[in-house]
Amino acid sequence: MKFGGTSVADVERMRRVAAFVKREADAGHSVVVAVSAMAGETNRLVALCADAGPPDPALDVRNVEYDAVVASGEQVTSGLVALILQKMGYRARSWQGWQAPIRTDNAHGKARILAIPEEPLGDAIDNGEIAVVAGFQGVAEDGRISTLGRGGSDTTAVALAAALKAERCDIYTDVDGVYTTDPRISKQARRLDRVSYEEMLEMASLGAKVLQTRSVELAMAYKVPVRVLSSFGPPDAPTPGTLICDEEDIVEKQIVSAVTLSKDEAKISLMSVPDEPGKAAQIFGLLADAGINIDMIIQSPSRQAGANISFTMAESELARAVDALSLAKEKIGYVQMLSDKNVVKVSVIGVGMRSHTGVASTMFRALADKSINIQNISTSEIKISVLIASEYGELAVRALHQAYGLDRAQGAA
Amino acid sequence: MKFGGTSVADVERMRRVAAFVKREADAGHSVVVAVSAMAGETNRLVALCADAGPPDPALDVRNVEYDAVVASGEQVTSGLVALILQKMGYRARSWQGWQAPIRTDNAHGKARILAIPEEPLGDAIDNGEIAVVAGFQGVAEDGRISTLGRGGSDTTAVALAAALKAERCDIYTDVDGVYTTDPRISKQARRLDRVSYEEMLEMASLGAKVLQTRSVELAMAYKVPVRVLSSFGPPDAPTPGTLICDEEDIVEKQIVSAVTLSKDEAKISLMSVPDEPGKAAQIFGLLADAGINIDMIIQSPSRQAGANISFTMAESELARAVDALSLAKEKIGYVQMLSDKNVVKVSVIGVGMRSHTGVASTMFRALADKSINIQNISTSEIKISVLIASEYGELAVRALHQAYGLDRAQGAA
Repeated sequence: MKFGGTSVADVERMRRVAAFVKREADAGHSVVVAVSAMAGETNRLVALCADAGPPDPALDVRNVEYDAVVASGEQVTSGLVALILQKMGYRARSWQGWQAPIRTDNAHGKARILAIPEEPLGDAIDNGEIAVVAGFQGVAEDGRISTLGRGGSDTTAVALAAALKAERCDIYTDVDGVYTTDPRISKQARRLDRVSYEEMLEMASLGAKVLQTRSVELAMAYKVPVRVLSSFGPPDAPTPGTLICDEEDIVEKQIVSAVTLSKDEAKISLMSVPDEPGKAAQIFGLLADAGINIDMIIQSPSRQAGANISFTMAESELARAVDALSLAKEKIGYVQMLSDKNVVKVSVIGVGMRSHTGVASTMFRALADKSINIQNISTSEIKISVLIASEYGELAVRALHQAYGLDRAQGAA
Repeated sequence: MKFGGTSVADVERMRRVAAFVKREADAGHSVVVAVSAMAGETNRLVALCADAGPPDPALDVRNVEYDAVVASGEQVTSGLVALILQKMGYRARSWQGWQAPIRTDNAHGKARILAIPEEPLGDAIDNGEIAVVAGFQGVAEDGRISTLGRGGSDTTAVALAAALKAERCDIYTDVDGVYTTDPRISKQARRLDRVSYEEMLEMASLGAKVLQTRSVELAMAYKVPVRVLSSFGPPDAPTPGTLICDEEDIVEKQIVSAVTLSKDEAKISLMSVPDEPGKAAQIFGLLADAGINIDMIIQSPSRQAGANISFTMAESELARAVDALSLAKEKIGYVQMLSDKNVVKVSVIGVGMRSHTGVASTMFRALADKSINIQNISTSEIKISVLIASEYGELAVRALHQAYGLDRAQGAA
């Protein structure tokens, strides 16, 4: 059972968390609880670190101390939740990352979990003790405290479930499951009973912020069924939530399961790039060296000369990309650079695409019916994404949600 | 170098701490820094624990979780101070109790340090790294985080100095040394250049709150010279402070070095206790079973029948003592119980007492001159304490300070 920052925002809320744990323990389950820091606490600690010594890429030692400071947030929550459970008469204890131990690599600030031994945690649980594990942290190979990066507590929970061969990993959060689209955009959005790992992975990387990508990858690799459900309902009768599971365990497969909208997009177009072999390699090599992740790429013949090349990236990386390309203008030999922040990415996702044709044409027709111009397209085996002007984002999501039969009335089956 | 909570209250103050450390490091010293939690932080964490599950003497597991929560305060400070030193260009790293490791017994909440291995801390220092150690905490034999109780960071600092065979342990605090008496009581109070371990030990247990008793015991056992000095002066020219050292290292021995006032005192008198063998054993056995520490005891014949027995304890323990004795009234057979909170203990302390006579008579004469009535007396080899009415406390301190030649003008030599 994993509980995030808003679910453990104060001692009163932690008592509600303990009530959820009580229900599972009383039902005879062995329970491991992974907890985040109290809401706001991580931000407070990060701000203290920034004040003490801003991050410096050249000095990784700073990330090590950042980890020591920030990991204290989860340490506090784990101890308090254990105290509350003890007060309720349960045998419970807190486990810090170094105690479990949750072994990670040395990439401080964004460490990856390498292994969690089955003992001593498994022994304690077999012995009837509720384990309350500090999320988001581990102990690195260098013996220092490490943190997994933002949202890392989801990963802690899934990794624990995998290591302990748990029946299921329940992620309690502030929404009651995974939806066919963002309910704030379409009132027709429906909660999905089940969704496959692969679909969830696409959704996580396409702007649905329910789960951290890394935690879904881990769940898929170790085939851990993950349930997302709300921590705000009554503890004795939780909402069913959404089960994230193997594709084979989903009986009624939809062609398209969900429509997502990603607003964190920006586009750069380089006009009249000389038509020489190796040009694209030069441009994207240069951007890769600058640490910029490129997403959709389109190359088309220019009316003037050479080719126009346009591509997208996260909005936060636009400025750096523009800088890097400006410096290399002569070397690359483009005539003009255009950049645009007013773009969004709309995607349809579904494992059913593998075996169905016509999914793309339905998408393009639905968008054309609303006179929405498609600027870029990218596809994978189970998703199609289009780049469009920001102002049409919500409209496109609603149109696609209807076009694929996801709206509430039709989707009831 | 040890810095307490007010010295690390915020990042700005921590930068001042780093400036003190810089001075020592630049002078070519190997430096270990022990830090407390930011002022107010420990109280905040203790309050969270009290809300989550109040302490229950029958459940020691609660103290274990309390330790996990509260120790996070020093964890944060150690990381931040290391970050600041790194920012200033020094090689520095934080050490948590479990990393050093500072091994303690299993008495969670009030653990005692058992051992600190010379490695890996010593290796890091020899390697030119500044070690910033989280004070107040360690790792218990059970592998869990332990805390040393309030003021425990002083003990951490002295234990580190002993383990690493440091030349000296500098305790930076909000006063600039140890005084002949509390300067708020007597303007004639003088800072002592040197004071012996034994005198400091008596002073610590008699209300002078400069150092925690346990830290002085440890310094005495391992002969660690401890210097108490202010963290509020300019970092490049620190005040001399007071050196706490071996008696043999003090050239100019005073007969009396200091006068202390302890206000946390209460007195119980049992009237007309039957004059039978074993009565005192019965009374004090009963109080010991109730966990009450008894200090000064006087037995005198009663005018009515039997004996009157009176004794003192900490004011906070008075209510429990009265309860325990009321319940046992018939068993003990006393006629009446009187209790009094309006008492204070005034003490004069000095290693010179061992070789000088007339110290007590000087004390009694000085108090008689001010018409102050002595209710109880207790002595040790190097101190004399008297119990008097609260209202005369400050007057008695000033009178004794003058009587023993401690006042500013005379004591200048």
